[in-house]
Amino acid sequence: APAAPAVQAGLPEIKWRLTSSFPKSLDTIYGGADVLANRLRAMTDGKFDIRVFPAGEIVPGLQALDAVQQGTVELCHTCSYYYVGKDKTFGFGTSVPFGLNARQMNAWMMFGGGQQLLDEFFSNYNVLSFLGGNTGVQMGGWYRRPIKTVGDVNGLKIRIAGLGGEVFARLGAIPQQIAGGDIYPSLEKGTIDAAEWVGPYDDEKLGFYKVAPHYYYPGWWEPGPAITFFVNKGEWAKLPRLYQEAFRAAAHEANVTMMASYDDKNPQALARLLGNGVKLQVYPDEIMRAAYKAAFELYNEEAGRNPAWAKIFIEWDKYRKSQNAWFSVAEASTDRFLQSTR
Amino acid sequence: APAAPAVQAGLPEIKWRLTSSFPKSLDTIYGGADVLANRLRAMTDGKFDIRVFPAGEIVPGLQALDAVQQGTVELCHTCSYYYVGKDKTFGFGTSVPFGLNARQMNAWMMFGGGQQLLDEFFSNYNVLSFLGGNTGVQMGGWYRRPIKTVGDVNGLKIRIAGLGGEVFARLGAIPQQIAGGDIYPSLEKGTIDAAEWVGPYDDEKLGFYKVAPHYYYPGWWEPGPAITFFVNKGEWAKLPRLYQEAFRAAAHEANVTMMASYDDKNPQALARLLGNGVKLQVYPDEIMRAAYKAAFELYNEEAGRNPAWAKIFIEWDKYRKSQNAWFSVAEASTDRFLQSTR
Repeated sequence: APAAPAVQAGLPEIKWRLTSSFPKSLDTIYGGADVLANRLRAMTDGKFDIRVFPAGEIVPGLQALDAVQQGTVELCHTCSYYYVGKDKTFGFGTSVPFGLNARQMNAWMMFGGGQQLLDEFFSNYNVLSFLGGNTGVQMGGWYRRPIKTVGDVNGLKIRIAGLGGEVFARLGAIPQQIAGGDIYPSLEKGTIDAAEWVGPYDDEKLGFYKVAPHYYYPGWWEPGPAITFFVNKGEWAKLPRLYQEAFRAAAHEANVTMMASYDDKNPQALARLLGNGVKLQVYPDEIMRAAYKAAFELYNEEAGRNPAWAKIFIEWDKYRKSQNAWFSVAEASTDRFLQSTR
Repeated sequence: APAAPAVQAGLPEIKWRLTSSFPKSLDTIYGGADVLANRLRAMTDGKFDIRVFPAGEIVPGLQALDAVQQGTVELCHTCSYYYVGKDKTFGFGTSVPFGLNARQMNAWMMFGGGQQLLDEFFSNYNVLSFLGGNTGVQMGGWYRRPIKTVGDVNGLKIRIAGLGGEVFARLGAIPQQIAGGDIYPSLEKGTIDAAEWVGPYDDEKLGFYKVAPHYYYPGWWEPGPAITFFVNKGEWAKLPRLYQEAFRAAAHEANVTMMASYDDKNPQALARLLGNGVKLQVYPDEIMRAAYKAAFELYNEEAGRNPAWAKIFIEWDKYRKSQNAWFSVAEASTDRFLQSTR
């Protein structure tokens, strides 16, 4: 980066590489990185140029954070919770089962202290984080056969990762880690019983409804999953201040536009899926309550052995309760009424 | 504006004046204009300098649009629905009774065609529009006495403006137009029976609970009111392209951060209000249904006499139904469960 202020020297040329954890085919979630990169180029006459690479071109999707930490690339666009294998605390950066919805996640991160708590944790990995999208609550997965009781979950082979998978395991299920492209044949052959992916718009593309027609909701393990830009700390420090400011604004844009784009596309996709004979099913309350209990047992156990988790969990849990108390008033009553009149 | 590209000549100095429709005391909604202005200064080393004026300093709050239309100022931060007296179609720019919630409004505006439809209408007023915030669904107002039936609304003097006031009038109420500072004494003396303002955080400051302790929810006349930046078309055209791009990003930031800020502050304010003896009351379903019926009668009548309204209403209503169908699935079931477990 040049020593002279941008305003005197003209805008400096900066080229960064961004590795995405998503394939181009997931256009909405992948597209968040394009929103950032396109806006930054447009604001700087092309001088701050972030080139976006789909998962697998530089590093595999689930190694995006590592690539930023080590300086292979300057930044990535990923889900923090992909890295719960390193430390469960990464879950809070995206979503944990029965956690915050999309608006609550923004409130916690931007004004409730979440960003500071997480960045303190992320600094151990040599990165800074910026909110870079949200999918809204996801759907609860595709099942070959309906499930009615907690007993039906026992022995169930379900494709699900992370903390959601751990909660399912506590109910007796056998979580499976399967790449996106392998889900369909596994469901078709019956080597798995169920699989979760994203929501109607993304799920529709993979055609799961043909082999597992029972489409459950909600995806209680991710009520408002945030997508994150991780930036290498050293590279951020070298960025001219004007570009840092531009980056912050463009990340906000990626955040709000991804949520709006999913909200625009999901209703149309769900209508098409229902037209194709998909059977919409709600998770039985018995299963929801058992999963909720198992989730908070897991959280409290983790708090007893992991100080990083404990520090964030205590604050997050207070915030969650306060948010749900407020959302149960005007927002819930409005939505309930509006949905009853359509 | 300079003829040379910004990148060669250095960034040009542009000074704009923004008139807000809000007083500084409503810090969150007023603050949306500061978010825009501060980010633009930070991204341009102070060269694109928007000075923000509170309501009343240049023109009264409800004349902000006129000031932009006539070129008195380059832009304003206001609610489109303040101008329904000119044309009811302005209602769609903010919120109409039983309309879109905050996320749905973003989806419609950004991806559902709302922005294009509205900008075609707004161009008659010599302005362009940019989303610049949202309050979320507002509360339903402060009442001196509880209301239980549609009959109780008859003859009720309630401080409420715009289309919400028209719907109340169809139920027999007598809507009152009263400036913010005059509401408290009017409620205290009993010259009005009820008054709506915003939500817990803003309402708390004016102390209504001392004289009208029944706090109703939801504010069904504004499920997700958007705040708008209106920019004079000629001034926008003169703006260097790089500044136009920066403006777009900063407006997105103002949009998403205002919603998050309200979501952060409202739970705390509601808890304090409840601690002060406020009686939380839900609008009886009978009143909600009567208001909903009256609202859509009004919309259909207006469609019969106002082509501008009709053009937007038809598209908006289709979008609304599709959105509510989708939100009734995963989002509603998640929120309902989470709120039941707090």
